[in-house]
Amino acid sequence: MNILESIHTNAELRSLTPGEIPALCSQIREELIEKVSGTGGHLASSLGAVEITVALHRVYDPYKDRILFDVGHQAYVHKMLTGRREKFDTLRQLGGISGFPRPDESAADPFIAGHASDSVSVAVGMARARTLLGEDYDVVAVVGDGSMTGGLCFEGLSDVGESGEAIVIILNDNGMSINKSVGGIARLLSRARTRPGYVKFKMAYRRVMQHLPGLHAWLHKLKEGLKKRLLPRGGIFDDLGFEYLGPVDGHDEAAMEEALRWARDRRAPVLIHAVTVKGKGYAPAEASPELYHGVDVFDPARGVKPCAAEDFSARFGSTVTSLAEKDQRVCAVTAAMERGTGLEQFAERFPERFFELGIVEEHAAAMCAGLARQGMRPVFAVYSTFLQRSYDILIEDIALTGEHVVLAVDRAGIVGRDGATHQGSFDLAYLSSVPGMKLYAPSSFAELGSMLSVALEEETGPVALRYPRGCEGRYREDRSREAASVLRTGEDLTIVCHGISVNDVLDAADELSGRGISVQVVKINRILPLDTRECLESLRITGRMISVEEACRTGSVGSQVLAAAAAAGLPLRRVRQLDLGDGVVPHGAPHQLRRVLGMDAAGIVRAAMEVMDEKDPA
Amino acid sequence: MNILESIHTNAELRSLTPGEIPALCSQIREELIEKVSGTGGHLASSLGAVEITVALHRVYDPYKDRILFDVGHQAYVHKMLTGRREKFDTLRQLGGISGFPRPDESAADPFIAGHASDSVSVAVGMARARTLLGEDYDVVAVVGDGSMTGGLCFEGLSDVGESGEAIVIILNDNGMSINKSVGGIARLLSRARTRPGYVKFKMAYRRVMQHLPGLHAWLHKLKEGLKKRLLPRGGIFDDLGFEYLGPVDGHDEAAMEEALRWARDRRAPVLIHAVTVKGKGYAPAEASPELYHGVDVFDPARGVKPCAAEDFSARFGSTVTSLAEKDQRVCAVTAAMERGTGLEQFAERFPERFFELGIVEEHAAAMCAGLARQGMRPVFAVYSTFLQRSYDILIEDIALTGEHVVLAVDRAGIVGRDGATHQGSFDLAYLSSVPGMKLYAPSSFAELGSMLSVALEEETGPVALRYPRGCEGRYREDRSREAASVLRTGEDLTIVCHGISVNDVLDAADELSGRGISVQVVKINRILPLDTRECLESLRITGRMISVEEACRTGSVGSQVLAAAAAAGLPLRRVRQLDLGDGVVPHGAPHQLRRVLGMDAAGIVRAAMEVMDEKDPA
Repeated sequence: MNILESIHTNAELRSLTPGEIPALCSQIREELIEKVSGTGGHLASSLGAVEITVALHRVYDPYKDRILFDVGHQAYVHKMLTGRREKFDTLRQLGGISGFPRPDESAADPFIAGHASDSVSVAVGMARARTLLGEDYDVVAVVGDGSMTGGLCFEGLSDVGESGEAIVIILNDNGMSINKSVGGIARLLSRARTRPGYVKFKMAYRRVMQHLPGLHAWLHKLKEGLKKRLLPRGGIFDDLGFEYLGPVDGHDEAAMEEALRWARDRRAPVLIHAVTVKGKGYAPAEASPELYHGVDVFDPARGVKPCAAEDFSARFGSTVTSLAEKDQRVCAVTAAMERGTGLEQFAERFPERFFELGIVEEHAAAMCAGLARQGMRPVFAVYSTFLQRSYDILIEDIALTGEHVVLAVDRAGIVGRDGATHQGSFDLAYLSSVPGMKLYAPSSFAELGSMLSVALEEETGPVALRYPRGCEGRYREDRSREAASVLRTGEDLTIVCHGISVNDVLDAADELSGRGISVQVVKINRILPLDTRECLESLRITGRMISVEEACRTGSVGSQVLAAAAAAGLPLRRVRQLDLGDGVVPHGAPHQLRRVLGMDAAGIVRAAMEVMDEKDPA
Repeated sequence: MNILESIHTNAELRSLTPGEIPALCSQIREELIEKVSGTGGHLASSLGAVEITVALHRVYDPYKDRILFDVGHQAYVHKMLTGRREKFDTLRQLGGISGFPRPDESAADPFIAGHASDSVSVAVGMARARTLLGEDYDVVAVVGDGSMTGGLCFEGLSDVGESGEAIVIILNDNGMSINKSVGGIARLLSRARTRPGYVKFKMAYRRVMQHLPGLHAWLHKLKEGLKKRLLPRGGIFDDLGFEYLGPVDGHDEAAMEEALRWARDRRAPVLIHAVTVKGKGYAPAEASPELYHGVDVFDPARGVKPCAAEDFSARFGSTVTSLAEKDQRVCAVTAAMERGTGLEQFAERFPERFFELGIVEEHAAAMCAGLARQGMRPVFAVYSTFLQRSYDILIEDIALTGEHVVLAVDRAGIVGRDGATHQGSFDLAYLSSVPGMKLYAPSSFAELGSMLSVALEEETGPVALRYPRGCEGRYREDRSREAASVLRTGEDLTIVCHGISVNDVLDAADELSGRGISVQVVKINRILPLDTRECLESLRITGRMISVEEACRTGSVGSQVLAAAAAAGLPLRRVRQLDLGDGVVPHGAPHQLRRVLGMDAAGIVRAAMEVMDEKDPA
């Protein structure tokens, strides 16, 4: 019998007998593997959170209580149990359900989640609102051990402890984040993991004390002494004001339920330390959890094959490794993205110059500043969306004294299926405001290689390269020596672009040429400082501009060219900016998103025809 | 005899006998009080760091070793002892010495420092560079307990422990940051402070062990058991991989020297927990350390008088308090800036809705998101420069789901004497890229009040107000109901401005009018979303624009108006943007900085005459 099929409401889930739960969990796992192998998505984290999530849904009301999942990719089971099971075929597809919690998708998703380490902060805000408004619901956050490396999480935990609010934090500790957890916090957790539990004793002790307040008071002083002997200390969590309960087997649903009920009834900050196995229940994922963290479509019987195709990340990795071969000062730094940024080869070849620091984008940037200040040449490889966390450090610790730190900004522009929380929409905007920042935009693997060499060997001060997720297209030249390149000459229309948008622009130019429209294509190779001469010269002739760029409108090259044109007294006839607008781009395949945004070749042709058709402004 | 007068080099400082040190420290304190009372500056922190700094300079070579001061305002003594004593009359004056460490000022300043909690990260980067390059110097960071509340510091400490690098961290614990330290970390430190020290025993024990490696090995297991009884545990610091040494009396220079020598020779991560008194040695500062954190010029015999003049911060504080009176959902949140942001009255009146969280700008913003999501109306009062830390949270946790969080962005624009690390240059740029952000720019107290009401009562989603340090000027109107206001009509030249720049602009317009130049003055009241109609209408007539704004060029209103003019096909004749350029503005009095930047009335008149004189572009 398929129990999962019979569950449609939270009440039905609660009415299951304890004996039915293991079978339910197995069925959830099977369905997870089946569905996610068909769509791609974050598999291993959700496999590791099955029992935790079932327990949460049996103890709490997911529609009334606020269950937060830090870095929401562990929330798939939560989604399945809150009315979205039938939609799992659409996971991360355009128009389908998101791979992360989203309040606009379900009332059971209390908050958006994508970037790590924020859930504890959000939880204490929610708990305080509850108290101030006199309302009655519970607040729970499920936080991975990787998220605990982030300083933001520490700030949040410190405040929860201080607040005294009834909040339950589940530390879902699988002993690794996306890469292996690193730093002192990992040591601290592993120490906690190996301590004997006394969990049941602690729960029983508390229960007795609750019913015998007199005894409680009398025992209080004695307890403080006894506690140290009898109750497991939670180390830092005790110090921060939590009641620590753990370690609990996070795959023993009954134990998790019991711990949760106990914690819920404490009406105080409680941390439940649940030990889990990432990828639990699917042998290939248990064996290689990193490989199954985020997967593309795969055959569950055969497992995931490491992707062979070279992409920008891989080319970055091989280039920085060969540059490090030549120059002993070159270091590579990553914040929990060794594999994602293509640094595995570097890590193997130069372990002493490779620094994987955990989910700590602020620290990583500041550490690079220290390395650079004392003569090393650090390259910080980081996704565009996560570098947002380092913004202040980029200004204060890197730009003001001109430290020669190279930022390898991966996943710039449209990222695709991870959706709004992960698109690389903003890097161009925020890097533009960092004093003295130089920004290159390679369009081909060859340009990535050359520009990285230039950034390390010829530039000084802060230098960034922004490059996309995925592979190069038809454009394979190397124009890295030009600030801007005229790829096509024409008199009717100027199209300005950078990065991989050049491929769609060239397709569009070909099509327009066939329609008798002569297009000047200007590819910007160095965005900061921006040299607008090629653009303005062309605009002097055409008077019409289309800009195509995978970046939000604010700070975009198109906007900068417009301002420069106005400052130069250059009158324009027609302008169209094709970009990521306010930067909020939903999930979907990149080619679909480009189509929807009108940034693919067809969209550019359409915009061009409109620009050519339109009358001059009055 | 004045010993301080006799010290000109580090060697001379080292050659003093221990008996001479207390007198030296007293003389340093006297001179600090005399000098800082004459210039204004950060007094109390440096008074508390006298013995620590003298000890550092006697144990380390400040020119070869790297001594980092977290939040550099505790570095005045370091500056006095490294060749800048004679320049203290110019402290924080235009062209004078900075109030923070600056590598361009002295080889003894290894790094710029201004924003809190970064020094540990920078230190570990420096130490790693030393190891990788095979060089020989020591790395020390002096970190206040306030800085320890910041998650960045936690990220750094965790990595130092993991690195095993020889780094000494001095925790300068005066039991308070700018406001009283808060959260679990404060409790943790206060627990450590009250534990018996065993410092001398620990140092002696280690020394013996070093010389008897055989005994050491034999005792190792025994030691682990013994250690718990005999040696003081450092709690979290032990867990993170540090050898913890403390608490040490931070005003006992000899004890500090001994601890430092011991720590230096350990060649491992060591944390020295020094307990100090903020404002030590100057009774008024010891009694009211917050009042003496940053001071204006004062009479040392009479002490600092709390400033009576109302400024924008005070008006914000009184307004938000009265709005909270009407609406029980209004909360105020601050990151260690209760006094600076004018929230003392609110804190007293509504303690349950007031949240002072420590130096945790990321957490504060995310906590606000949680409050807002569950029905409260949080106002996060924060300096422009420190809000840079929250950039990622503004996008991911506030903007993407449209949480109604109000940002009261104080110290926007020119801040003055704190200099480059603290100017409010960038908020306009980075807020512009946050999806859906609304941004108001009050120019008068009346506008601040009205706009704050609108932000709380009428707006939805994220809303920010940016307002300056200091007082209002001649402009005292309330135009808050208009997105942009035409304050003067004219046909020759359009001047666009916002915030307090309006005062200089009006002065300039009067002067220009006397010279027969008719100026249209457009004041932007709401910067985001920007309504450019008034500007474009005016530019259609004048064709000439000067923009005046206390913000960096990137994302500026001037640039946005230019882009809009170009997109509208509007040809401009002459344009001049008066702003903060790349955002790097040195220290000095605000009126001096405005003069230097050509943004005062005289500068605007000069720019206007040039714009009027210049020929149209070809």
